[in-house]
Amino acid sequence: MIERLAVIGVGLIGGSLARALRREGAVGEVVGCGRALANLEQAVELGVIDRFTQRPEEAVAGADMVFVAVPLGAMRGVFSAISDRLDPGAVVTDGGSVKGSVVADAMAAFKGIPPSLVPGHPIAGTECSGVEASFAELYENRRVILTPLPETDPDALARVTAMWEICGAEVTCMSVAHHDEVLAATSHLPHMLAFGLVDSLARMHENDEIFRYAAGGFRDFTRIASSNPVMWRDICLANREALSAMLARFGIEMTDLAESIRRADGDHLLEIFERAKSARDRYVDSTR
Amino acid sequence: MIERLAVIGVGLIGGSLARALRREGAVGEVVGCGRALANLEQAVELGVIDRFTQRPEEAVAGADMVFVAVPLGAMRGVFSAISDRLDPGAVVTDGGSVKGSVVADAMAAFKGIPPSLVPGHPIAGTECSGVEASFAELYENRRVILTPLPETDPDALARVTAMWEICGAEVTCMSVAHHDEVLAATSHLPHMLAFGLVDSLARMHENDEIFRYAAGGFRDFTRIASSNPVMWRDICLANREALSAMLARFGIEMTDLAESIRRADGDHLLEIFERAKSARDRYVDSTR
Repeated sequence: MIERLAVIGVGLIGGSLARALRREGAVGEVVGCGRALANLEQAVELGVIDRFTQRPEEAVAGADMVFVAVPLGAMRGVFSAISDRLDPGAVVTDGGSVKGSVVADAMAAFKGIPPSLVPGHPIAGTECSGVEASFAELYENRRVILTPLPETDPDALARVTAMWEICGAEVTCMSVAHHDEVLAATSHLPHMLAFGLVDSLARMHENDEIFRYAAGGFRDFTRIASSNPVMWRDICLANREALSAMLARFGIEMTDLAESIRRADGDHLLEIFERAKSARDRYVDSTR
Repeated sequence: MIERLAVIGVGLIGGSLARALRREGAVGEVVGCGRALANLEQAVELGVIDRFTQRPEEAVAGADMVFVAVPLGAMRGVFSAISDRLDPGAVVTDGGSVKGSVVADAMAAFKGIPPSLVPGHPIAGTECSGVEASFAELYENRRVILTPLPETDPDALARVTAMWEICGAEVTCMSVAHHDEVLAATSHLPHMLAFGLVDSLARMHENDEIFRYAAGGFRDFTRIASSNPVMWRDICLANREALSAMLARFGIEMTDLAESIRRADGDHLLEIFERAKSARDRYVDSTR
């Protein structure tokens, strides 16, 4: 049971955590914090939070659990603001999509890694944002990756794990570097391709006509290109190294594919497509 | 009203046309033709066709409408088989995803373009194939592109247009070359990216673990990588030129994006992502 939860950043991710914990009766008071006043007022109206402040250092007062769900570019500022204002028993966790940069921000702000810090990342989301997009079921049957550090207190890790499990999520632990590689492959690279494809078509002369003939497959394929541009800029900057490596790997694959098309090498194309289909079908079966 | 429809290739596309026309009472008899006996037997059991033959030249006997929905690589063989066996009043159309190659195949098989030929492409489909995947609603509110040639009889064009409109589709005409460019952009390129991404990840050492952390966005993004590999090999070979041009255009876009990430050029990344999001949101709004 969490007595007082401080949610810094009351959007899709932060709002959905608060909703899920409330639904399960697993939280006493929820204090929201953010920069957009209208969003915070809406969060109170929707019953997602009980009250709010626009100052992180005020939001964490008396909180036994602090969830930081701000864009990656705002993490360091929040950590600095709260670093000497946390309650002695408070646990701090976050929802950042890149863990290396969050840990570096924490190091800088806290002057070292506090034992109460449990870096985390719920693998869930939609292309929508803001508290109005939040819902209690977001984390059900989703995975949450926690990346505890050598300094992390096992009790803090246990409390964050329990919090996510109450929301219906499956919690896994891995290293910071491994998390950032896995996410570069499964999330950050696909977003780059979707943004790149749509932008590439949007810049074509007859782009209005082209989009008109895009069918359902295109809509699914490009859904993630409707995601928040600022958030994705931050993710790119924060996970530069792993993402650059994945982009290079993908570039080699596409050069091979383009070359096979140019050469009319049907056998090699078939081999690529069959391997991809079989991997995708296996993956979908295993996660259905 | 179609008296006798010959469907050469009774899969998702051919089967769904037959189902839709039957539902609307717009067809007398449906004769199916294909290579896989089990699929044809299933098509009869499902009531999609009335009877079948495995020989295209037999299937078209007495048919006033012939729909060729075989993989692009099989088009020329079908056209050759039926070229001197068509009824004088028969109209021939097809469902091929590339029109340049279909027209070239027809030229070769018919020794010129017959006035009764109306090349076409319904912009509809799923990642499934076979008659069991077919359904009468597939073409509702979807676009069908027809690419009539100078030789095409206006009456044949009118009959094919009416057939698709009965199925609930919106028919547009454009040139063969323009069709192949538009489809390279909106369908063939996205499929290459999905196949290429999944194959690229499948070839990574820890690919099982990587796929395990892929979330909903990844599933949508890669759905089209579960499409039929043989069909896509054929499409790549048939639309080599336009697809190669689109791949090159996309390659330039991705090089720019990768370079911006390497340089940590957040402003340029934000510009790309915002342009893409705005184009995608506009497109989704306009087609919802």
